[in-house]
Amino acid sequence: MTTLPLSDYNIYIGTDIWETFNELIASEEPAQIAVLVDENTKEFCLPIFKEKTNFDYKVIEILSGELHKTLDTCQQIWSEMMDFKMNRNGLLINLGGGVIGDMGGFCASTFKRGMRFVQMPTTLLSQVDASIGGKLGIDFMDVKNSIGVFNNPQAVFVNTVLLDTLPARELRSGYAEMIKHSLIANATDWKELLGISDLAHIKWDKLLVSSLKVKQQIVEEDPFEHGIRKALNFGHTIGHAIESHFLHTDKRLLHGEAIAAGMICESYLSYLKSGLSKADLEEITTYLLKIYGKCSISDSVYPELLATMRQDKKNISTEINVTLLNAIGVCQVNQSGTPEEIIKCLDYYNSL
Amino acid sequence: MTTLPLSDYNIYIGTDIWETFNELIASEEPAQIAVLVDENTKEFCLPIFKEKTNFDYKVIEILSGELHKTLDTCQQIWSEMMDFKMNRNGLLINLGGGVIGDMGGFCASTFKRGMRFVQMPTTLLSQVDASIGGKLGIDFMDVKNSIGVFNNPQAVFVNTVLLDTLPARELRSGYAEMIKHSLIANATDWKELLGISDLAHIKWDKLLVSSLKVKQQIVEEDPFEHGIRKALNFGHTIGHAIESHFLHTDKRLLHGEAIAAGMICESYLSYLKSGLSKADLEEITTYLLKIYGKCSISDSVYPELLATMRQDKKNISTEINVTLLNAIGVCQVNQSGTPEEIIKCLDYYNSL
Repeated sequence: MTTLPLSDYNIYIGTDIWETFNELIASEEPAQIAVLVDENTKEFCLPIFKEKTNFDYKVIEILSGELHKTLDTCQQIWSEMMDFKMNRNGLLINLGGGVIGDMGGFCASTFKRGMRFVQMPTTLLSQVDASIGGKLGIDFMDVKNSIGVFNNPQAVFVNTVLLDTLPARELRSGYAEMIKHSLIANATDWKELLGISDLAHIKWDKLLVSSLKVKQQIVEEDPFEHGIRKALNFGHTIGHAIESHFLHTDKRLLHGEAIAAGMICESYLSYLKSGLSKADLEEITTYLLKIYGKCSISDSVYPELLATMRQDKKNISTEINVTLLNAIGVCQVNQSGTPEEIIKCLDYYNSL
Repeated sequence: MTTLPLSDYNIYIGTDIWETFNELIASEEPAQIAVLVDENTKEFCLPIFKEKTNFDYKVIEILSGELHKTLDTCQQIWSEMMDFKMNRNGLLINLGGGVIGDMGGFCASTFKRGMRFVQMPTTLLSQVDASIGGKLGIDFMDVKNSIGVFNNPQAVFVNTVLLDTLPARELRSGYAEMIKHSLIANATDWKELLGISDLAHIKWDKLLVSSLKVKQQIVEEDPFEHGIRKALNFGHTIGHAIESHFLHTDKRLLHGEAIAAGMICESYLSYLKSGLSKADLEEITTYLLKIYGKCSISDSVYPELLATMRQDKKNISTEINVTLLNAIGVCQVNQSGTPEEIIKCLDYYNSL
């Protein structure tokens, strides 16, 4: 087990986290404990959790998936916490992927004006992305994470053993955030990732720790995203819009799949505007296409994508805020793209 | 104008606050501004606001009253902020009583994970109670303020001119919190308030500043209500339950009216358990009855009241947490009442 100490809490990474986990829960002395799961983590993770833990808890089960990351589901969670007579001395354990962590964390942070919570992310995406940063929330009016708060858990337990049971597509989705961390801040990691083509047989622990350190450094410098933290948004301005669009079609994309497409588009914008070399652009494009393939984005949906981008929290006025690369491993926040430039990026992606 | 500086923001109290208000809003440089009102503050306060301010804003209007302090109304507010294309560089001005301040502050604090807000409380209750403490939230499943966050505004503007237009019952409701502040921490203020029988002809500024200082001292010592802040809960354990009960009847009580009844009950509990003298109990009871009269609480609703009290955020386990008086001006937090003792208090109130 590796312990990554952050300023407010620790992340524990490895396969042997349970003893520390049980000790931490005991030391919190919660008046009540609930565990939030969805139908998947109930089936695959809760039995392990049950076997390895030594305390009593209630289980709250919600429906899986981004489509259920809504106020309606929050109401279900809050209701069940009320029914369990939980108070603000209670504790919620979020056993699941990003949706469970973001929404469970939001529900805990707003229940009785703030209850403690512990994250146990079960997907690669949530392990690498949601473990640091305190971003909690839900989607509202089809805008991702538009309602939420910043708040930190008591601890995060990254149990890498769970990755072996994860579907290949889920693994690939999380991997996109690791690629992003390398592109914005660690060219050495990028070279290492470039050598990976089969995600099924990877020793994740070391790669995860290295990737989490990139995020840690950025987030601790700028917890509330006033500046450098927007670096983590690389690939997400266009990627989020693509993800939102496909959410309502029968070709839904996982988060990382959309972000991979977004990173290709925003690398092209970096090539156009911020000095990314043609060779680097091509290296990025080729690797991302190899891992993720291509989705088809009809130009008839461009206006919808642009409208979504204009809703982004990071926009300061009416311009679309983006993070661009100057080179692999070096990025620049608070750049902007005009609708025409964004369309050029989408055209580039479609031309591949 | 008196400026009361708190650790994170200022409260400006007086009739001549507008110049400071306009300057503060300009200095915040908000990307967008919205003003939250209900049908009452739209009619009585917004015209003054419009005349005195020198910036542009959108108006969001909600239905007045505790019955609308719900997630449904939050969804309306968030939707309109989305429609106005507000982002987290925007600013919300809450022009109204406690419901507007609590709910508007909650909506701002959770919109795009946190937007700034300014409070302009328009009732005596919200001026004296909601100006300090950062408690924001809504009612959920009939439990008051069960969903919310702690967060501070950029500033609070207490415009005492608005009190002249307030209905007598509203004035009396807010006055209960001033009485509470004196009972828990300032025996001199209590003696002064005892001399007041007609609320219509009071110079509020000085009394307000003195009362706000009691709350300031307590809240700054314990912002998250781990200890001494629970002093402010005096009268509220039983009072909240009474308020919740009457919310669904045709004899609805205003907050302060319910808290007045709660303070009588909890003074009786203080007499039983924490050394409040019989003379002090009688002085409190007599004065509160003189100002508020009596509501009738049938003993058939006792079980419902006790069930509500058990839901209180301040309870640590299954006991009912209360704040009691040792004497007028001296209180003790984290005391507890058994159901039997609470029933004795309600019986005492009913016997008056």
